[in-house]
Amino acid sequence: MSPNGCPPSGSTPPGHAMYALAKRLFPICRSITGNGFRRSLEIIAEYIPGLKVFEVPSGTQVFDWTVPKEWNIRDAYVIDPSGKKIIDFKNSNLHVMGYSTPVDQKMSLDALQGHLYSLPEQPDAIPYITSYYKERWGICLSENQRRSLSSGEYHVVIDSELKPGSLTYGEVVIPGSSEKEIFISTYLCHPSMANDELSGPVVVTELIKYLFASSDKEKLRYTYRFVLIPETIGSITYLSRNLKQLQKNVIAGFNISCVGDNRCYSYLSSRAENTLADRAALHALKFTDPNFKRYSFLDRGSDERQYCAPGIDLPVCCITRSKINEYPEYHTSLDDLNLISSEGLQGSFDVILKAFRCIELNEYLKIKVLGEPQLGKRGMYPTISTKDTREQVEDMMNFIAYLDGRLSTLEIADKINTPLWSLEETIAKLKKHDLVESVASPLPSNIDNVVELNNTIKNIV
Amino acid sequence: MSPNGCPPSGSTPPGHAMYALAKRLFPICRSITGNGFRRSLEIIAEYIPGLKVFEVPSGTQVFDWTVPKEWNIRDAYVIDPSGKKIIDFKNSNLHVMGYSTPVDQKMSLDALQGHLYSLPEQPDAIPYITSYYKERWGICLSENQRRSLSSGEYHVVIDSELKPGSLTYGEVVIPGSSEKEIFISTYLCHPSMANDELSGPVVVTELIKYLFASSDKEKLRYTYRFVLIPETIGSITYLSRNLKQLQKNVIAGFNISCVGDNRCYSYLSSRAENTLADRAALHALKFTDPNFKRYSFLDRGSDERQYCAPGIDLPVCCITRSKINEYPEYHTSLDDLNLISSEGLQGSFDVILKAFRCIELNEYLKIKVLGEPQLGKRGMYPTISTKDTREQVEDMMNFIAYLDGRLSTLEIADKINTPLWSLEETIAKLKKHDLVESVASPLPSNIDNVVELNNTIKNIV
Amino acid sequence: MSPNGCPPSGSTPPGHAMYALAKRLFPICRSITGNGFRRSLEIIAEYIPGLKVFEVPSGTQVFDWTVPKEWNIRDAYVIDPSGKKIIDFKNSNLHVMGYSTPVDQKMSLDALQGHLYSLPEQPDAIPYITSYYKERWGICLSENQRRSLSSGEYHVVIDSELKPGSLTYGEVVIPGSSEKEIFISTYLCHPSMANDELSGPVVVTELIKYLFASSDKEKLRYTYRFVLIPETIGSITYLSRNLKQLQKNVIAGFNISCVGDNRCYSYLSSRAENTLADRAALHALKFTDPNFKRYSFLDRGSDERQYCAPGIDLPVCCITRSKINEYPEYHTSLDDLNLISSEGLQGSFDVILKAFRCIELNEYLKIKVLGEPQLGKRGMYPTISTKDTREQVEDMMNFIAYLDGRLSTLEIADKINTPLWSLEETIAKLKKHDLVESVASPLPSNIDNVVELNNTIKNIV
Repeated sequence: MSPNGCPPSGSTPPGHAMYALAKRLFPICRSITGNGFRRSLEIIAEYIPGLKVFEVPSGTQVFDWTVPKEWNIRDAYVIDPSGKKIIDFKNSNLHVMGYSTPVDQKMSLDALQGHLYSLPEQPDAIPYITSYYKERWGICLSENQRRSLSSGEYHVVIDSELKPGSLTYGEVVIPGSSEKEIFISTYLCHPSMANDELSGPVVVTELIKYLFASSDKEKLRYTYRFVLIPETIGSITYLSRNLKQLQKNVIAGFNISCVGDNRCYSYLSSRAENTLADRAALHALKFTDPNFKRYSFLDRGSDERQYCAPGIDLPVCCITRSKINEYPEYHTSLDDLNLISSEGLQGSFDVILKAFRCIELNEYLKIKVLGEPQLGKRGMYPTISTKDTREQVEDMMNFIAYLDGRLSTLEIADKINTPLWSLEETIAKLKKHDLVESVASPLPSNIDNVVELNNTIKNIV
Repeated sequence: MSPNGCPPSGSTPPGHAMYALAKRLFPICRSITGNGFRRSLEIIAEYIPGLKVFEVPSGTQVFDWTVPKEWNIRDAYVIDPSGKKIIDFKNSNLHVMGYSTPVDQKMSLDALQGHLYSLPEQPDAIPYITSYYKERWGICLSENQRRSLSSGEYHVVIDSELKPGSLTYGEVVIPGSSEKEIFISTYLCHPSMANDELSGPVVVTELIKYLFASSDKEKLRYTYRFVLIPETIGSITYLSRNLKQLQKNVIAGFNISCVGDNRCYSYLSSRAENTLADRAALHALKFTDPNFKRYSFLDRGSDERQYCAPGIDLPVCCITRSKINEYPEYHTSLDDLNLISSEGLQGSFDVILKAFRCIELNEYLKIKVLGEPQLGKRGMYPTISTKDTREQVEDMMNFIAYLDGRLSTLEIADKINTPLWSLEETIAKLKKHDLVESVASPLPSNIDNVVELNNTIKNIV
Repeated sequence: MSPNGCPPSGSTPPGHAMYALAKRLFPICRSITGNGFRRSLEIIAEYIPGLKVFEVPSGTQVFDWTVPKEWNIRDAYVIDPSGKKIIDFKNSNLHVMGYSTPVDQKMSLDALQGHLYSLPEQPDAIPYITSYYKERWGICLSENQRRSLSSGEYHVVIDSELKPGSLTYGEVVIPGSSEKEIFISTYLCHPSMANDELSGPVVVTELIKYLFASSDKEKLRYTYRFVLIPETIGSITYLSRNLKQLQKNVIAGFNISCVGDNRCYSYLSSRAENTLADRAALHALKFTDPNFKRYSFLDRGSDERQYCAPGIDLPVCCITRSKINEYPEYHTSLDDLNLISSEGLQGSFDVILKAFRCIELNEYLKIKVLGEPQLGKRGMYPTISTKDTREQVEDMMNFIAYLDGRLSTLEIADKINTPLWSLEETIAKLKKHDLVESVASPLPSNIDNVVELNNTIKNIV
């Protein structure tokens, strides 16, 4: 990684690369199983090395769940009483309820109504509806179109297939110096929608590309594990096959979704609320945009539900922009390529990279001299004094003032209200001048501690 | 108890029963000892089974105090210079200072003034005054009446008796499955005043009645111990005779007074501030009326002073409505039967019962499956989705998300901002489907814990 | 000390004595070494017994630093092209940059400009500038004077000497019953400025005088150690020679500077944030002026930087008035004797003495009776009831309510929102009546403790 945790300049701006990939993936009809998911993984594999694809057979027991049948769809349409094809899967794959059973049937408008789904409050939008665990079929359309239907006989065709097959997911591992891991999960099971969800996979693809390039130059401190899975059943399946390993190695994890728009940044806490992942995410976000939104674990809605479940207890939080459920276009045809932008994707890429950087830079350091070190004699003071250098010196002195091996570098950066990544040069200089030593574990803390008072007294009465 | 912690409908509304009992007890002249206290206990015994009455002789040493002489009064009056009986104990027993020594004396208005007590700022009210530990006599009257007195010779008669006897108190125990106890204390030593104090004894009487009826159907989890005592000297006496037993068994306690008006709900914390009693009271109050008033232990004024004293340290807090000292009618003749109401008493009865319910339902549960359970296959999802069922499902999923055996059910209910009693059906279903197990003690917590971060790091550097 | 922690009345008001001493010390040209510092110590020694003076040779290694050469100055001036002495050290010793090397040179205005220091934004003020660790010379003057200089040849003379010598500091110890110490540091290295810094040394001088007088009457509980040092290099030097002893004995320490103006009180926390010193300072300040300003350790700027450095970790915070860096006259000739006042110095003296008193009175007490004690029988209730006595009784009862040996007297005073020094009489009475016992260390606390809830539950499920 470059020192400030940002991508090297000069190459194609990753924001544009990410947007281009989203555009390419957009038309594919994905679901929690099936060829749309597989095809999307194939395309992503063109951009990055090391993607492994796994297939888990339908019927496999995964914790309390069962891997469902595989669903595939070739075509679907509705022909109205006048013979006109008024609904066509080729125009929008949202027209078909996900996991619809096959149908080829003529029926009255009344009978058809029982299978139609629309949004009265968003009359222009086609809703995104699925029925994974109860077999049925449905047609989704705009409320305006629905209102325009006249009575008569309709012909409905859904040329789909629901039968034993397998659930597919992808995994990429970038080895670091330590077997300890940073774990990143995103899902790839939604049909043509841009913020929820293609923004997640395309940002993750770019992160993988970037980290591989970085690790080619210098090995990363931690191993990075990325998974691209179907939501819920995918994380349950993945966990059921990898839980022990994850619990042993993962020190921080992030669920990435809805990272493509440019409206705001958001954070959703892990269940444990104060893990290294939470600290790093909060640190990266607050120094990127102090107005980022904070959500509690009670607002959760994606795979963090599984990663943080009792007994799983992984340190996983979410970095998002407009969060699922919280923006008007969510789960409708309005969540299209106009909703996301190169800038939106780039901002998310940058902030996630900063969170990674915080974890890479996090350690326990202890200053080796007593009292303040004399930095002038080591040339660690700037020779000319400007507002910038004054702030830099102040940050450096504040950082040194807390280097007692009790707070980690990330905790100190929070304490002194300075981005950890901006202290990278200071840390390097302190190490170069042999002014600090690493300690394996935090020394007993006397900060913020009422007990301290009691202990002080105890010895003297 | 019924599932929602509220009394069974169909029977006489307990609010009316409580008001009727208050009306019956109102005329009796009670004090910290004597026949008024005994007669009040006898009447209460008509309504409930199992009331045991204890007599503790005058002169008994109780901690740092001594049980005082017993005081009884037959009559008292003042005759003015014109021969008119202007003060008559039969009209209001507040006219006589509590524990007044006997007197039968003629005196000038000047001499009389030294024995008169009135409230210049509340000229219509007769104040409630006592002198338990210094022997003297006094006549209480309204400031208006006092101002109307003309000079001349007055004849004062107080036909009272102050001599060795005993201090009386009552106790009721409702055995539960566990010998661990919920302890409820109320006092019964005030003459004719309604909110402070008859509201306390009548709500307690109805709670006893209700819990006995409940335990006839199904044994309660905890044992409930109720005491009806004289304030201060009564709780000191009771504690001096039962301290070891109370410290061994009481897991939560409530001092109940001033629960009859309908102005507000209030909570006064225990000294330890965060006992199970405090948690249950706060939980019951906040979901009953979010605008309830919170008082600190510094605002204390009743028997919680003894229950929470150093060395006693019982987990006792107070649930009240308009708190002692905080309403204008307090300790005057204006605190009469118009100040309290069936609705006021009923509300207090309900909220105290909810606090009990929180304790009955409080336990450590651990979900037995990894990841979210598949509830659909167990019929635990409502078949139709309405706003109500959606909220119910959300509450259920939030509850399950925290079932890691680290937080108690009451702590989880606080966390997910849902009344614990509303989760009773969910808990029952989870147990029926064998999805949870009870754990004897909380597992080590990783919630809200900075140390967690340190520990995570410790293992990896 | 007198019971309320304030000086005995009748003697010369110490405010005036402190101001007079400041006036006497003001003209002397002090620096971090040299005769000005020595002469200032000699004058102070006239006012107090027991001042020991230490000399540490130039070149001595002190932690990461080296004691610098000694600097002395006899005279300095600038003669303008017309032959007029326009700058004269005798008028203001701020005219010479501290540690200026000697010079006797004629030069053009242009060449001179490179050695001139002024403040464009405060055109009337001579700035205070030093260059301790890089050898150079400089002339400080007002911006207005600088602008009036016309071109031509200037003659600059600085008759100074920079050569091996020693660093001087003073120390006073007032022995108490315990070898545990309260440590007070102030610095004495600034030339003619009043708030920063003479206010510090004069208040400290008066405190020493007062504590010696007190300890003559009755030994103080703790030993008091005062040091008068040059800033930064002085505290580093002092620490390097005394660290073990200080770490063993110091239970609370205060760095005293800028305590002479009358604008506000301020507090700057120790790095550990919640030491006994912090508690005592906060307690003393909040009951002196609730509007005092709170600064974090990030706002530090004086010797607390060394006392709180990692590995030093002394419990030292700062009590100041207008803090260094935070008032417009800071480090200029405007910080003169008009900025400080008898009242300002007196207020600081009083509040520091109150902080000392809080520490002297801080202990763990446990009430020996169960339940509230019967105070009436011991004459501990006032015989007449006024608003004052009611508040006193309430404070006493609140204090007793928390005397469980778990909170210290200072913690209780905070809890019940009463100055600890106002409880001194209550504590004395409780001891006289044998109602309390001291405990050597705090009993396990059950206050404010969620774990308490868990523990309660643990035993009963």
